[in-house]
Amino acid sequence: MGRSEGEPCLQVQVSQDMEKERETLQAWKERVEHELDVVVAFWLEHSHDQEHGGFFTCLGRDGQVYDDLKYVWLQGRQVWMYCRLYRKLERFRRPELLNAAKAGGEFLLRYARVAPPAKKCAFVLTRDGRPVKVQRTIFSECFYTMAMNELWRVTGDAQYQSEAVEMMDQIVHWVREDPSGLGRPQLPGAPAAESMAVPMMLLSLVEQLGEADDELAGSYAELGDWCARRILRHVQRGGQAVLENVSEDGEGLSGCLGRHQNPGEDTRPTLPEPSPGHALEAGWFLLRHAVRRGDPKLRAHVIDKFLLLPFRSGWDPDHGGLFYFQDADGLCPTQLEWAMKLWWPHSEAMIAFLMGYSESGDSALLNIFYQVAEYTFRQFRDPEYGEWFGYLNREGKIALTIKGGPFKGCFHVPRCLAMCEEMLSDLLSRLAPASAPAPALSARSPPADPARRGAE
Amino acid sequence: MGRSEGEPCLQVQVSQDMEKERETLQAWKERVEHELDVVVAFWLEHSHDQEHGGFFTCLGRDGQVYDDLKYVWLQGRQVWMYCRLYRKLERFRRPELLNAAKAGGEFLLRYARVAPPAKKCAFVLTRDGRPVKVQRTIFSECFYTMAMNELWRVTGDAQYQSEAVEMMDQIVHWVREDPSGLGRPQLPGAPAAESMAVPMMLLSLVEQLGEADDELAGSYAELGDWCARRILRHVQRGGQAVLENVSEDGEGLSGCLGRHQNPGEDTRPTLPEPSPGHALEAGWFLLRHAVRRGDPKLRAHVIDKFLLLPFRSGWDPDHGGLFYFQDADGLCPTQLEWAMKLWWPHSEAMIAFLMGYSESGDSALLNIFYQVAEYTFRQFRDPEYGEWFGYLNREGKIALTIKGGPFKGCFHVPRCLAMCEEMLSDLLSRLAPASAPAPALSARSPPADPARRGAE
Repeated sequence: MGRSEGEPCLQVQVSQDMEKERETLQAWKERVEHELDVVVAFWLEHSHDQEHGGFFTCLGRDGQVYDDLKYVWLQGRQVWMYCRLYRKLERFRRPELLNAAKAGGEFLLRYARVAPPAKKCAFVLTRDGRPVKVQRTIFSECFYTMAMNELWRVTGDAQYQSEAVEMMDQIVHWVREDPSGLGRPQLPGAPAAESMAVPMMLLSLVEQLGEADDELAGSYAELGDWCARRILRHVQRGGQAVLENVSEDGEGLSGCLGRHQNPGEDTRPTLPEPSPGHALEAGWFLLRHAVRRGDPKLRAHVIDKFLLLPFRSGWDPDHGGLFYFQDADGLCPTQLEWAMKLWWPHSEAMIAFLMGYSESGDSALLNIFYQVAEYTFRQFRDPEYGEWFGYLNREGKIALTIKGGPFKGCFHVPRCLAMCEEMLSDLLSRLAPASAPAPALSARSPPADPARRGAE
Repeated sequence: MGRSEGEPCLQVQVSQDMEKERETLQAWKERVEHELDVVVAFWLEHSHDQEHGGFFTCLGRDGQVYDDLKYVWLQGRQVWMYCRLYRKLERFRRPELLNAAKAGGEFLLRYARVAPPAKKCAFVLTRDGRPVKVQRTIFSECFYTMAMNELWRVTGDAQYQSEAVEMMDQIVHWVREDPSGLGRPQLPGAPAAESMAVPMMLLSLVEQLGEADDELAGSYAELGDWCARRILRHVQRGGQAVLENVSEDGEGLSGCLGRHQNPGEDTRPTLPEPSPGHALEAGWFLLRHAVRRGDPKLRAHVIDKFLLLPFRSGWDPDHGGLFYFQDADGLCPTQLEWAMKLWWPHSEAMIAFLMGYSESGDSALLNIFYQVAEYTFRQFRDPEYGEWFGYLNREGKIALTIKGGPFKGCFHVPRCLAMCEEMLSDLLSRLAPASAPAPALSARSPPADPARRGAE
């Protein structure tokens, strides 16, 4: 970057540029911080089930509950989110967050498993906890694990941590040893395909469980490397595309499945297919892994393949925003919503590009963050009732007015805002008033938690 | 209608009106007839798998195969469609249709069942017939039954008919006696809901199997009445809405499920939720049932509740076309594609309103047919490559350029065109050159098949 070198007049220019950069970062930090307050207030006001514990997530534009089903992914995610906010940001260290998270955790402990002591969890429960549907995937269990580990971190109650670790063992067994407990029939025509969602999800659990816990971090280190290798195999077509599905041997598959699409029974309820939101989310998971591992080569590869590539192919040149699905061969996707603009690819992109800049200092990444964040704040926010709309059409018009539903809860938006707030604060603290060094290019230790307690 | 009465000058006016009506009907008959030729030519040219039998249905705009998976619904539907065209319309009584239908039938006989002799069929097969996915519903088996019965009608080969009748027995057993063979887990929180798709589908099988077959028609008569009663129970909200899901007792359900929506694992692959296309399709199934039963009171009720009601609530006043999903309480649906315009609700609407007019003589229904048909021909046809686009956005722009996919094959479009051609011919033949009587208002016997053979 060379900002701290050169002749005096260049130094003045550099100093002015830095001051401008500092002001822009500061302005975004304030926007993000305020937005996080508004978003959290929305969920605090509208989503708590005082009677049964847990959360309503089917919320209309103004927060009105339009269905009281409880989706286990979203229950786990909201418990996790509340605990994480409580733990990381001083202003959210409030009893109402902690108590709601604990009530949500108790609801999951009591009702999530379909036939205890077996660990398989439901996908959706009635308001009072009776199972409605079960998915033959690992994701309900993954969000259960995240919730329990984070509850342990804020309460120090060992029961939560043993729940988390035992469920993690079960998930790893399903993924790496024997999937038969998930109940999927083995059909001779079904390709032995790997969805990128599985190693992605596991990698995020490795980070979750290993945070500030040397023993668990050590015991999951090999698993983390395995996940990273598996995710990286999804870079296909001579490095020109990140595909959702590859064969068990890491090769491309034929047909729609191999070009990103997965037309079939489990398409909607599993993690949505990528392109480009999913690739960008995988990107920041891998970036964190590269930082933990102190691997600048991996970091550069990830920025290239999981950030810049999906952004270049996925940004709509006509209307702005990221497409939801794309086909690697440029054919028409079969998903009806492929050209819609969804909230979560945009929140994942904000995280990915701000993190990419924080870790590399490459200002091109910061400019993409600004581009995505401007679009996202302009199109998805609802200044009237708070929280974000989730579903826009290609042109950016609101297609669905709901604020929450079977797949949108208290997760992507506040996670994005909280992480961006933290990264922006960190970047600002690294920008000295004048001729400061460029942001660090090597692995850094994570910032201290202002509200940390228990756990250690 | 009173067209044949009145003073002389009124008679002249009536005669002029009738001549204009005749010309309009004739013009539509020619459009529909030509369009059917173009559509059938598209499938004949692009969809046949000469190597393995059966049909490719994942076809791009120009007919190029973009995936070679074989969806069992669409295999059965195309076999049925080819046989029906061969049997009903002289110009399609061609060996290439019959041979392709037989090859498709043989493919189904050999590969559709996942574990013969058990009757459960796959949802999707590889090109060479290995099962990829199985749905825990009855629909693959229903389209298998339609295909086999129709193959029997054109070939006279008794094996096809015994396949059809045995599969029908299995389906009825699953629906009315014991669904456990479908493999759906019984979960304590899952409401005992009935989807309108199930009695609808069964009613169409009753008609299929009973056509010109007094013995089977007699043995399924009670089943047909049961189906009709079950479908009619979906008229809810004091007669103001046709809901997709009701309880086993025929009462409304709470939440999204009870307001038409079914957010969960099987949403996409089962018959899509209604509003208004599904209600309109049920409408013409019920109309035919009312005609067979000679029940003008039922006919009037069906026209009111299953044709006019869904049309009034489902027609987009801003951009034209029928919405895909709606919520009975006017809330925002959770289906991302709710406001899109899909081909099949429009083809079902064309059938329903033309049939409603044919059976009632109410010119308001004919005017709605014209309104829907004008929109449909303008928006969905592809004059360049043939067949129709399937998926438009709310404004009517093409959202997906594919001509076929996992849910769109050689079925709704040619069925609509063939039925409309037949109904238009029949209407024209009933319009004498001058002061003819209005169309019949009571039950009529079905028109003779010009190309009938075998079966009797």
